[in-house]
Amino acid sequence: MKIIDGGVTAAKGFKAAGMHAGIKKGTKKDMAMIVSSAPCMAAGTFTTNLVKAAPVKWDQHVVYEHGEARAVVVNSGIANACTGAEGYGYCEETAKAAAEALGIDKDEVLVASTGVIGKQLPIDTIKKGVKDLSGLLLDTREAATLAAESIMTTDTVKKEVAVEVEIGGKTVTIGGMCKGSGMIHPNMCTMLSFLMTDAAISKEMLQKALSADVDDTYNMISVDGDTSTNDTVLLLANGLAENPEITEEGEDYQTFARALHYINETLAKKMAGDGEGATALFETKVIGAQSKEQAKILAKSVICSNLTKAAIFGHDANWGRILCAMGYSGAKFDPEKVDLYFESAAGKLKIIENGVALDYSEEEATKVLSEKAVTAVADIKMGEASASAWGCDLTYDYVKINADYRS
Amino acid sequence: MKIIDGGVTAAKGFKAAGMHAGIKKGTKKDMAMIVSSAPCMAAGTFTTNLVKAAPVKWDQHVVYEHGEARAVVVNSGIANACTGAEGYGYCEETAKAAAEALGIDKDEVLVASTGVIGKQLPIDTIKKGVKDLSGLLLDTREAATLAAESIMTTDTVKKEVAVEVEIGGKTVTIGGMCKGSGMIHPNMCTMLSFLMTDAAISKEMLQKALSADVDDTYNMISVDGDTSTNDTVLLLANGLAENPEITEEGEDYQTFARALHYINETLAKKMAGDGEGATALFETKVIGAQSKEQAKILAKSVICSNLTKAAIFGHDANWGRILCAMGYSGAKFDPEKVDLYFESAAGKLKIIENGVALDYSEEEATKVLSEKAVTAVADIKMGEASASAWGCDLTYDYVKINADYRS
Repeated sequence: MKIIDGGVTAAKGFKAAGMHAGIKKGTKKDMAMIVSSAPCMAAGTFTTNLVKAAPVKWDQHVVYEHGEARAVVVNSGIANACTGAEGYGYCEETAKAAAEALGIDKDEVLVASTGVIGKQLPIDTIKKGVKDLSGLLLDTREAATLAAESIMTTDTVKKEVAVEVEIGGKTVTIGGMCKGSGMIHPNMCTMLSFLMTDAAISKEMLQKALSADVDDTYNMISVDGDTSTNDTVLLLANGLAENPEITEEGEDYQTFARALHYINETLAKKMAGDGEGATALFETKVIGAQSKEQAKILAKSVICSNLTKAAIFGHDANWGRILCAMGYSGAKFDPEKVDLYFESAAGKLKIIENGVALDYSEEEATKVLSEKAVTAVADIKMGEASASAWGCDLTYDYVKINADYRS
Repeated sequence: MKIIDGGVTAAKGFKAAGMHAGIKKGTKKDMAMIVSSAPCMAAGTFTTNLVKAAPVKWDQHVVYEHGEARAVVVNSGIANACTGAEGYGYCEETAKAAAEALGIDKDEVLVASTGVIGKQLPIDTIKKGVKDLSGLLLDTREAATLAAESIMTTDTVKKEVAVEVEIGGKTVTIGGMCKGSGMIHPNMCTMLSFLMTDAAISKEMLQKALSADVDDTYNMISVDGDTSTNDTVLLLANGLAENPEITEEGEDYQTFARALHYINETLAKKMAGDGEGATALFETKVIGAQSKEQAKILAKSVICSNLTKAAIFGHDANWGRILCAMGYSGAKFDPEKVDLYFESAAGKLKIIENGVALDYSEEEATKVLSEKAVTAVADIKMGEASASAWGCDLTYDYVKINADYRS
């Protein structure tokens, strides 16, 4: 697998565009479009929140009923959630406008929104945006970046990644972009992630590869514990790599799945590290578990703990909060057998052994915890399984951003 | 039921004391003792965290195995959690020291701790504290207050309450005190609550009344979603009111249970309103539910949402976050049927009807949300059941307190 510099235009046949259409005040970019020159198999995973935004319902119709797609239209600024029948109607109108501009069918157009809940989309602005975007589409590196910038809300950095793998003698590329950074607790975050590949792969295998991997990547991050109404991961495959079509779980599938996992884990970590107000990416790795499921429950409980997150912000080795969060996770383990380490670019330090604090240096611990990416490793000594979860610290800026997000 | 000014010394036969023993730096009070002149039936509910502090294990031994108690010794500053066999040994030593000073059995002494996890208690300081406290015991209003002040950590106010009811022609009194205010998400917080009554009631009925009510009161509050290792509610009944002993669920039991409910709800709300860094008590009431359980799940999900809590801090009527939190709660309801109101001393405002925003005044909403206690009422229109949950806003001070709690 080769990591390349790229985003949603990295794979063959994909063009993108991004611009300020007028949904957000000022001149911030707020609409993006991605289009494939060939029909794509479409896979998707969506929020499990009972309150589903209108675009989630529209995309479920496209992915589950229609099955193929050619274009994605995304707006930031307004989430189009809790908007009733009017909101759903705007999804269809957006798709229709894109279909007309691109000469495709409206059921081939996926839509996604992120921003404030409860406001209706300015549909005329959106429709004009769709028309303008269709005239700006390019397959360049810059075009991908414009798209990635246009879907940002409180994100501070754009999030892109791309890789190449060889399948059946052909180079297959996967490129993706995503946005965070609040209301992020994916069960399936407003996390939006858009993955474009030129792999030839059956719809069934495409969805399988995506669904299996989402549980280990996006679903293992949390910024604030709030599962959004809009979470969406879309994966489009247009077959232009001309590899032998992947139709079963053989070697080729594994190669594709590994590449997809790298893309998903990279984007997921970018989201966690760029959580609202965050100053650090905080990873928790549970090792020595009896099962991956047990390790996942424990790891996720720690990265979701407000007290632990605040301690990370303070560069404070408050390990009791970590053990506490493991204790209320619901997973069984013996607290009196746990070893805990803190690890970062500044070094690795063993803090507790068999549930009791070692005589470690608080100064050294603070040094380890002062890096941009810090990891807590808990060894529960029950077996061979392990899992990681990714979050961020809880900061003054998180409160600031969310106390007056709408103003 | 008559609400009276009082705390743990309100009921007949209970004395208390509080002082600075030397566990905390400076001169802050850090130890309290409560003693009954007569043996008490003892009931208790304890943290469900798998990581249980040593005093929780000791108290479970006293309540479940011994069944009767005469004294409670509490320290603040150190939680005696994650302290292994050494920590448990210190519980026993503390009980032993109290037993000697008071001329009772060590199995009649309950102990409780709150503060930093992972540090060992300074046992000599504790033992000297126990001895000194035993010489300071009084049945006065002031003594109760000293005890209530001695168990505070990041609490900003002491928390006491007392009521009188008549049972079988006799005046029965229940008095209590508790402390919050971080790591508060009781499932059965370090929440500690101590309830003293002179009621004559069987151990079975006492535990039943307590267990039943804890689910509707302490277990319905949350400050930060972190279930502590030390959560403990203890209820002691010494029978000195001389009412006919309550041994079954008749009218007398109901009278006692209602009084106990008032005590528990009042203390629980005090804890939620005084959550770390909080500027407001935030209640969510779900009405029109099919079952109380459904209403409880929905209400608790809302008061636990960081995004909603930050919006309350900002006096921002960001109702989308409330609906979102209901949506990921796990309870079933129809988002498109929900009516939502904000209510406080400044008035009541309907914000959404059937899942869609009304044309309400943001200015008026901000006025309603600027009070010290604000309530969100969600009508889900499915039935007659209802439930409330209590939390607080998420503020800069919460982050500040928890980023450097140990320093």
